[in-house]
Amino acid sequence: MLEATFWSGGCARHALADTLQFSRSKTNTLAAGLLEQGLLDEAGLQHSTGGRRPETLRVNAGLGVLFGVDIGATSLDLALLRPDLTIIARHSQAADVQGGPGPIMSRLRSLMPMMLAEHGIAPEAVLSVGIGVPGPVNFAVGQLVNPPLMPGWDSFSIRDDMREVTPAPVFIDNDVNLMALGTLWRQHRQIEDFLVIKIGTGIGCGIVCHGELYRGATGSAGDIGHICVDPDGPLCRCGNKGCVEAMAAAPAIVAMAQEAAETGRSPWLAEMLKAKGQLEAIDVGAASRAGDEAADAVVRRAGQLIGQVLAALVNFYNPSHVFIGGGVSAIGPMFLAAIRQSVNQRSLALSTRHLEVTYGPLGGEAGLIGAGVLAMREALRNGSIAS
Amino acid sequence: MLEATFWSGGCARHALADTLQFSRSKTNTLAAGLLEQGLLDEAGLQHSTGGRRPETLRVNAGLGVLFGVDIGATSLDLALLRPDLTIIARHSQAADVQGGPGPIMSRLRSLMPMMLAEHGIAPEAVLSVGIGVPGPVNFAVGQLVNPPLMPGWDSFSIRDDMREVTPAPVFIDNDVNLMALGTLWRQHRQIEDFLVIKIGTGIGCGIVCHGELYRGATGSAGDIGHICVDPDGPLCRCGNKGCVEAMAAAPAIVAMAQEAAETGRSPWLAEMLKAKGQLEAIDVGAASRAGDEAADAVVRRAGQLIGQVLAALVNFYNPSHVFIGGGVSAIGPMFLAAIRQSVNQRSLALSTRHLEVTYGPLGGEAGLIGAGVLAMREALRNGSIAS
Repeated sequence: MLEATFWSGGCARHALADTLQFSRSKTNTLAAGLLEQGLLDEAGLQHSTGGRRPETLRVNAGLGVLFGVDIGATSLDLALLRPDLTIIARHSQAADVQGGPGPIMSRLRSLMPMMLAEHGIAPEAVLSVGIGVPGPVNFAVGQLVNPPLMPGWDSFSIRDDMREVTPAPVFIDNDVNLMALGTLWRQHRQIEDFLVIKIGTGIGCGIVCHGELYRGATGSAGDIGHICVDPDGPLCRCGNKGCVEAMAAAPAIVAMAQEAAETGRSPWLAEMLKAKGQLEAIDVGAASRAGDEAADAVVRRAGQLIGQVLAALVNFYNPSHVFIGGGVSAIGPMFLAAIRQSVNQRSLALSTRHLEVTYGPLGGEAGLIGAGVLAMREALRNGSIAS
Repeated sequence: MLEATFWSGGCARHALADTLQFSRSKTNTLAAGLLEQGLLDEAGLQHSTGGRRPETLRVNAGLGVLFGVDIGATSLDLALLRPDLTIIARHSQAADVQGGPGPIMSRLRSLMPMMLAEHGIAPEAVLSVGIGVPGPVNFAVGQLVNPPLMPGWDSFSIRDDMREVTPAPVFIDNDVNLMALGTLWRQHRQIEDFLVIKIGTGIGCGIVCHGELYRGATGSAGDIGHICVDPDGPLCRCGNKGCVEAMAAAPAIVAMAQEAAETGRSPWLAEMLKAKGQLEAIDVGAASRAGDEAADAVVRRAGQLIGQVLAALVNFYNPSHVFIGGGVSAIGPMFLAAIRQSVNQRSLALSTRHLEVTYGPLGGEAGLIGAGVLAMREALRNGSIAS
């Protein structure tokens, strides 16, 4: 019941009874117990008018706090969240996972107590920690498995290492799975079959099936970065040729932009390169928005290749929504338009008739919110909150 | 409980209690009721030794019979089945769905009573009918939706038409979904995340997710025939170029074989063409098995293209098993070998480490058994058996 209230984001008693298929009286009895334990609290206008029992139940925001951590290939994001997933504080910094777990873990060790202290929150108030990582995770043991973007992290136990930082339980999952989990929570589980695509240094996909996150038979579902889009394409670090990640993720976009700058096809990018010494994907977006044709072509090419992969996945999976996120997704409207065009051209009408391909509803916070959802859900399930 | 017993294919009481999370005594009480109504019966050695209650419960094989119907693009298959899905009688004939529903429905009207009469079964004994069709189905209303292989069937209600044949309830689904459902039943739901690929006149896929058939947001999941394998490939009837169906399903295999025969590259196929007037996919298999190199190349090419699509799906979906079925799957060991090679080459190690790509466990009967599973499951769910 606590979990159902959490997923609803605050919910009328009668709706909760419907969701759980409980009678109205059973719902009220259970709610009374959880209210007395301080796990739920009440809200609603009826309270002030006296007489009637307040209708809306919420998870008690005063229960404690959660940490959501999003370890990216090139960034580290932390959020301190309330149990209703509103963000109390957020911290972002550049970081390089290729340097192995040492530097990242040491930053977490100093940042987490600092964020708590800044907001006058006691360390004991931390209920649970959720962490997203850019690689395949064995969810049961909380370890990375052969992560291609994270050499040095293979079989490293983030969970064990975190014991020095906090006694709260720690849960680890793949970053895109957490974006999907966050999106599922944000939609109150109203949409049941959808995909979340993250385009950054790599390309990954979170899959929601029948209203639950789908991890696949061995936990690697959604690993779409190495789907082939051109058998004669460039060599990928996985050993194959023409993987979508090697041709359309941030490094490929930067390489195409670099070439456009160096060959003089893009005066705008050439100037940026001269000024900054190196280009980023976001610079290509800026050049495209400013009307630079070569930059536009790069953005469209990347979108078209990603759309080509999505078209196949849409035919196969028939999702109701495809949500696009990750750092590269911000490189301009041309990018989303190219993805959409490519999907619509190559997918069957029956699959696209009601399909929506849009930016995710949580924007750049999807990973952090998802980490918070993981932390909260798992703490509710393992009884560390309710006990 | 009846449905759980059906899925188990006969099950010990204690195992059933575990599956349903019922106490032993609740299980025995419910079983006693169902035994008294004649819906279950008992089996097991303990019966003859006296004293102890027989441990194994089964759905009563004497309840009645089911019809499973598999309408293919070029064939019509019927089976009369017991509630435990053993086949009492089977009938197969060539048929052409392109001629519209009239001829097919009229054959069903004569064949079904004939099969019952031949086995001395009263028409009232028919519990339920399951029908598979080679096109997208709106499962809720039991109608085909824009079926590309079945012009003339769009919005035709097979269910309404069947009222003239039998008063038993009729359930319709896509043929590959039924192969997946049959396979799920055959495996006692022990494997939870797998794909079934049917390669015949078209190419389709049935998806099992978390132990349930997955139909997608609008029911078209698994429609993989129009995934692009070559942007410069031949024009497909869907209007796009290089769809896997246009390049590797039966008509494409026949076209490649025809060319090999006509250009003299395959003496074997040239002789067959001369003798028969036209070639079938199965002839290419025979030629390949006899050592004809050109036929071998055709088989390998088709397998390689299908493997290319499967590699992408395996990366995305991370199934534990991919089961290959349909008429074309019988064209020889080279075909399965080429599919496997292509999948292993292009999928990530993490996805293929425990992956099995094999022929389906039900062989050519998967569609019929699946139609029987659909008939039985839906009749149990809608209460037409238990009432």
